[in-house]
Parts: sequence; C-alpha cells; structure tokens
Amino acid sequence: MTVEPRDPVAVAQALIACPSVTPAEGGALALLESLLAPLGFAVERPVFSADGTPDVENLYARRGDGEAFVFAGHTDVVPPGDEARWTSGPFSAAIENGELIGRGAVDMKGAIACMVAAVARAADEGMNRPVAFLITGDEEGPAVNGTKALLEWAHARGEAFSACLLGEPTNPNALGDEIKVGRRGSLSGTVTIPGVQGHVAYPHLADNPVRKLPAAIAGLMSEPLDEGSERFQPSNLEIVGVESGAGAFNVIPGAASLRFNIRYNDRHTAESLTALIAERLDRALGPGAYRLAFEPPTGDAFLAPAGAFVDAIADAVEAETGRRPALTTSGGTSDARFIKAYCPVVEFGLVGRTMHQVDERVSVADLETLTRIYERALRVV
Amino acid sequence: MTVEPRDPVAVAQALIACPSVTPAEGGALALLESLLAPLGFAVERPVFSADGTPDVENLYARRGDGEAFVFAGHTDVVPPGDEARWTSGPFSAAIENGELIGRGAVDMKGAIACMVAAVARAADEGMNRPVAFLITGDEEGPAVNGTKALLEWAHARGEAFSACLLGEPTNPNALGDEIKVGRRGSLSGTVTIPGVQGHVAYPHLADNPVRKLPAAIAGLMSEPLDEGSERFQPSNLEIVGVESGAGAFNVIPGAASLRFNIRYNDRHTAESLTALIAERLDRALGPGAYRLAFEPPTGDAFLAPAGAFVDAIADAVEAETGRRPALTTSGGTSDARFIKAYCPVVEFGLVGRTMHQVDERVSVADLETLTRIYERALRVV
Repeated sequence: MTVEPRDPVAVAQALIACPSVTPAEGGALALLESLLAPLGFAVERPVFSADGTPDVENLYARRGDGEAFVFAGHTDVVPPGDEARWTSGPFSAAIENGELIGRGAVDMKGAIACMVAAVARAADEGMNRPVAFLITGDEEGPAVNGTKALLEWAHARGEAFSACLLGEPTNPNALGDEIKVGRRGSLSGTVTIPGVQGHVAYPHLADNPVRKLPAAIAGLMSEPLDEGSERFQPSNLEIVGVESGAGAFNVIPGAASLRFNIRYNDRHTAESLTALIAERLDRALGPGAYRLAFEPPTGDAFLAPAGAFVDAIADAVEAETGRRPALTTSGGTSDARFIKAYCPVVEFGLVGRTMHQVDERVSVADLETLTRIYERALRVV
Repeated sequence: MTVEPRDPVAVAQALIACPSVTPAEGGALALLESLLAPLGFAVERPVFSADGTPDVENLYARRGDGEAFVFAGHTDVVPPGDEARWTSGPFSAAIENGELIGRGAVDMKGAIACMVAAVARAADEGMNRPVAFLITGDEEGPAVNGTKALLEWAHARGEAFSACLLGEPTNPNALGDEIKVGRRGSLSGTVTIPGVQGHVAYPHLADNPVRKLPAAIAGLMSEPLDEGSERFQPSNLEIVGVESGAGAFNVIPGAASLRFNIRYNDRHTAESLTALIAERLDRALGPGAYRLAFEPPTGDAFLAPAGAFVDAIADAVEAETGRRPALTTSGGTSDARFIKAYCPVVEFGLVGRTMHQVDERVSVADLETLTRIYERALRVV
C-alpha cells in the first residue's frame, strides 16, 4: 500500500493501523521512514536500552544542514483497554461522521501525520530550511529509552536545533484553544511516621502513629506553596497515598506513611521544595519524628522564552483557526521537559478530549487545519 | 510413658510435648483424657465444624452430679515462630534454671497441668464436689468451634455450672498480681470517605478525600469515650488502619478508609457506640459524606458479680502467694466472654510475660504454687 504523504488523513490512518502500544514499534517507525526518505530525509532508527526497562526503537530524520527546526513526538500509544467497547477496532482507523477513530488519533499519531504532510507540501513549494524529526516509541512508558536518550544521541553527533514544536494534544475543546509554552515541575516523596506497634487492648504500651497523621496532612496541604507566577498557576501539593496498619483489627500500627506529589511553578526548584517540605514537617511533627524520602527529581518548571518563536506559532494558529490561542503552562509533564535543555520548545497539537479513552478520535477537518498550521510554522519560524 | 497426674510439672511437660498448634489436637486432649478418666471423670471429646473454619476437637470431662465447678482452658497454642531461635525446642519441654521452656508453658498448658494436679490431690483427700473440665482446641484460632460450641453442646445436654475458673495467664509480672474479674467489650468498624479520583496535574477536576482524613481522625480519637467506671478503665478507640491511594504518584485517590477498634467498658454497648461513632462522624465530616460499617459485635463488657466467688479466689491466691491480687478488667478478650452467659467466671493463671514469644517459659515453682491455689479454690468455692 502506498500512502500519500501530503494527505494527513491517509498518513494518520496508516499510522493508527500499526499496533505500536509501548514499547512495541508496531511498524509505525518503518512507515515514517518510508514516507520521509523520499522527501529527502536521512533517516536513522536507533534502539536504546537500559537496565530494567524494555529496549525501545526511535526515529531521527534530518533534511538540510545547520540548526534544524524540529518536529517532535511519539508513535507509541497507550493500550486500547477493552477492545469490545470500541465503535470500530482501536487499530482499524475507521472514519465515521467526519471523525477518524483509533488509538493514537489525537495522542499523537494524528499530529505526526500533520507534520509529515506539512513537510511534504512545503517541499513541493521549494522549502529548503533544515528540518528534523525527533520521534520516540517511549513517551507513554518509562520515557527512559525515548526522547531523552535520542536527544543525547543526536547531541553527541553534533546535531543542533533552532526550535522545537512538540505535537502533544494541547487543546482542551477546540483546535486553537491553547499553546503550551511551559510545564510545571513534578516532585514526589514519601513521609514515614514511626510509632510503636502493639495490641489494641494495651494502648499504653504502644504509640499509635495515626494520631500524628492529622498534623502531618495539615502541615503538607493546608498552606499554599505560593501564589503562582506570571505565566504559571500556583504550585500544588496533593497527598496521593496514605497507608497504616496491617489489616488486623487488634493491632495498633507500627508506622504510618504519606505519599505526595507536587506540581510546581518557576518560583520553586526541587531543592527549594525539598527544604520547604522538611521545614513544614519539622513544624507539624517535630524534627526527628518522621522520615522523608524523595523520588528522583524529574525536572523543574520551564518556559519557552517569550518572543518571536512563541509569537510565530500563535500567529500561525490564529491565521488558520481564527482564534488567538492562550499561552498556558498547566497540566502534566511531556517530553518537552527533556527537549528544553537543547532548544526552545512549545507544544501544539490536536484536541485532547478523548486521549487515553475508548473511541479516541479526531475530526478529519482538524487534521487538515493542523497540517496548515504546521506548514505556516515551517515557513515563518 | 505414664504421667503422674499429681505432679503439675510432669503433666505440663507431657502437654507441651504435644504439638497442638491451632487447630491440631496434637495428642494433648488424648493425654488429658488418659489422666482424668482414672480420677473418675466421664470424658467426651466432641468435634465441632462450621463453614469456613477448620474442624476442632474439644474435651468435656465431669465428675459428680449437679452444678459443677468448672476449670476452663485451651490446649491449642500459637505457632512457635522461628524454631532455631528457641533455647531448646518449642515442644521439647526442657527445664533450665528452674524454668520449663516450651510453647504453651504459660498460655496455657501449664495452668491446665495445675488444674489436673489440683483435682488429683483433692480427690486423694476425699473431695466429692461436682467438677467439670471445659477444654478447647480453638482459643488461639477463629474461636468458632471451641468454647462457644462446647458450652452450647453441654447446655443442650443439661449440664449446669456453679462457677468457672479460666486459667489464662493473668499475672503481668509475678504470680498473685491480678485476677481478671471482667473483660471489656470489643467493637470494630470501617469508615470510608469517598472522593473523586483524578490526575494529580488537574486537582480542580478531582476531590482528594485525604483532605478529610484529619477531621475524621480527630473526630474519632480526640475526645474520650467516657471517664471509666467503677471497675473498668476508660473505653478506648484506636485507629488500626488507614488506606488511600493506589500506589501511583500521579493519581489523586478516589477514596480513603479508616479502620478502628474500640475496647469499651460497662458504660457502653455495641449499640450505644454504633450511634456515638455515627454522631461524631456526622459532626466531623457531615452526614452523607462517609460510609460506616461495623464488624459483627463480639460481646459487650461484663463483670463477675462481686461477692463470695471472687473473694474466695482472691483469698486462695493470697494464702499461697502472700499477696492480695488486684481485681482487674484490662487487656484483651478471652473465652470468658462466652462462659459468662452460663455462670460467673473469673480468670487466674500463670505469669504472661513470655506468652506468644520465642522461649515462652514458666517458673517450675509457680506451677506448684498455682496447683495449691487451684486446690484451695476447689475446697472453698
């Protein structure tokens, strides 16, 4: 089957037909290679490995010399869940009522199809700027053998980038809603409060750590971490787990633990938060009355520098959708946290409403519009 | 091997040698039958069954007609744990430095040996009062096919009892410390606080139930349930378990739960507490903001009636130990909670310090003293 690279719907259908549930390549990267090579791209598909994670295949494609404008994304998808609940199969890529249905339709094979179509159309019109594709198969998984490793690999080869557009689904409701110009940082940790285990009939011989939980919870959650910053909403801490006791009704627990996650803005770093949490717990429980451990930091908050790059992307979105997109920094993490170390990065893609759900789907019209937005970006950025 | 029934140390050694870890009979009841039958007891060993629990063998022995004075106890023992950590084997019944070492030495094969020796000696001296033994093999287990079933079985046969002495280890430090004249009631329950699960990056779309835990914990634990009563310490509630979250750092939990146990005195019943807990949670969380479920009640607090029976046991203890025992109601539950429905019951046995531990052990001298106390009880009660 020959796929027309200028048709984002055809490319999206062909990509969705590849069952590339993380970490499987599923034929998706081979398909991209077959589309990009004829457009003049030098394509490589390095496989990265690390202890304790599956090997992952990635794709790097470049056309032209010098600092390249980068389209970044991932072809891996989350599992389809209960396939019987899908209107049509998760990998059959059926079009119904103007919508293309399938796993990855918006997150984010659809956007990758738009990138390919935009590059193909721009090439027809004589584009000669350097362009690269940075496509991973490990965004939905551990994210160890994906974008992070691919960037290190490219950097070691001397590859340089002027700016990056990442195609994650950034629009909550309609194409043109939002460009993500930054992401909050994320920091997780665990507080353990020791007590003295004992029989529930002899509480004076035990020390129930549950008595200290209210102070610990209030100490962590009740005061805001900050009031937000110019571009970011306030940092937020959520307790995501509480555990104490072994299941028996006659045993006073020997310890209690709280797990928490912080999504934080540019007024904090992992270091400042580590100190702040310890200070709050010292005040709530007393120094030495608890143990505090943090998960490895996954990166502080970051922002694309304000100016020409961000403006140009926003102009392209407005020109094609008639709406000025909001510049936002909310929501979860993405591979932009790795890319920002190499060049300015913003994110703009499809409408995320159905991502990770049964019957994930994208408007066929949106695929055409996004292709034109990406094409404008190629011309002006 | 013939065991001399008048020698409590020999009987205790023979009983410890029977590996009667619940629900195994281990030869312990057969040994008791071989000792009691020659003393004129009619011995029966009924086996009881119930769905979902192991079959358990029990022993009922009676000598004489009319209302019998009952010695009650259990021959089953808790598992030995790591046998390598025992000074001598848990079932080898070695005597070292005046102490008999073995699983069940104090809880409560030692006391049963003293009961047998007391009865044998009293018979030598012409005792002709009616006496019964109510011995179960299911005290350390589910307690379904043990004393409760045996009492119903005996009651159905028309057996009647004047009073009961249960040989649980009641002394914290030295023989003569305490007679248990009652037990607190025990009631367990679970509070579930629903929330709305969600991604930790979008807290406004979720409702973290952990925020309500401090109010729930304080509502349950901070105010005393009562100030105690004439014979009982204050009722006490302990939270024995807290659970929330599925283990992921990026998911706000959909629910939180608290498990609690109340040990309560004669100022409360299971019914009064059920209402009080609901009232406290209504105040702390608001009606409808939680679900409350109680475990099946295991019996309210109870007391042996003050008077001749309790006084006679205390006199016997004082006569042999030189110390007036305290009359207490503290600590955990025992089979007395079943017996109290049939006749007054008090508990007096060995020193419990090493019960359920590696190297459980009893002073050989205590076995002789307890035998004499039990013999006095037989004469005067």
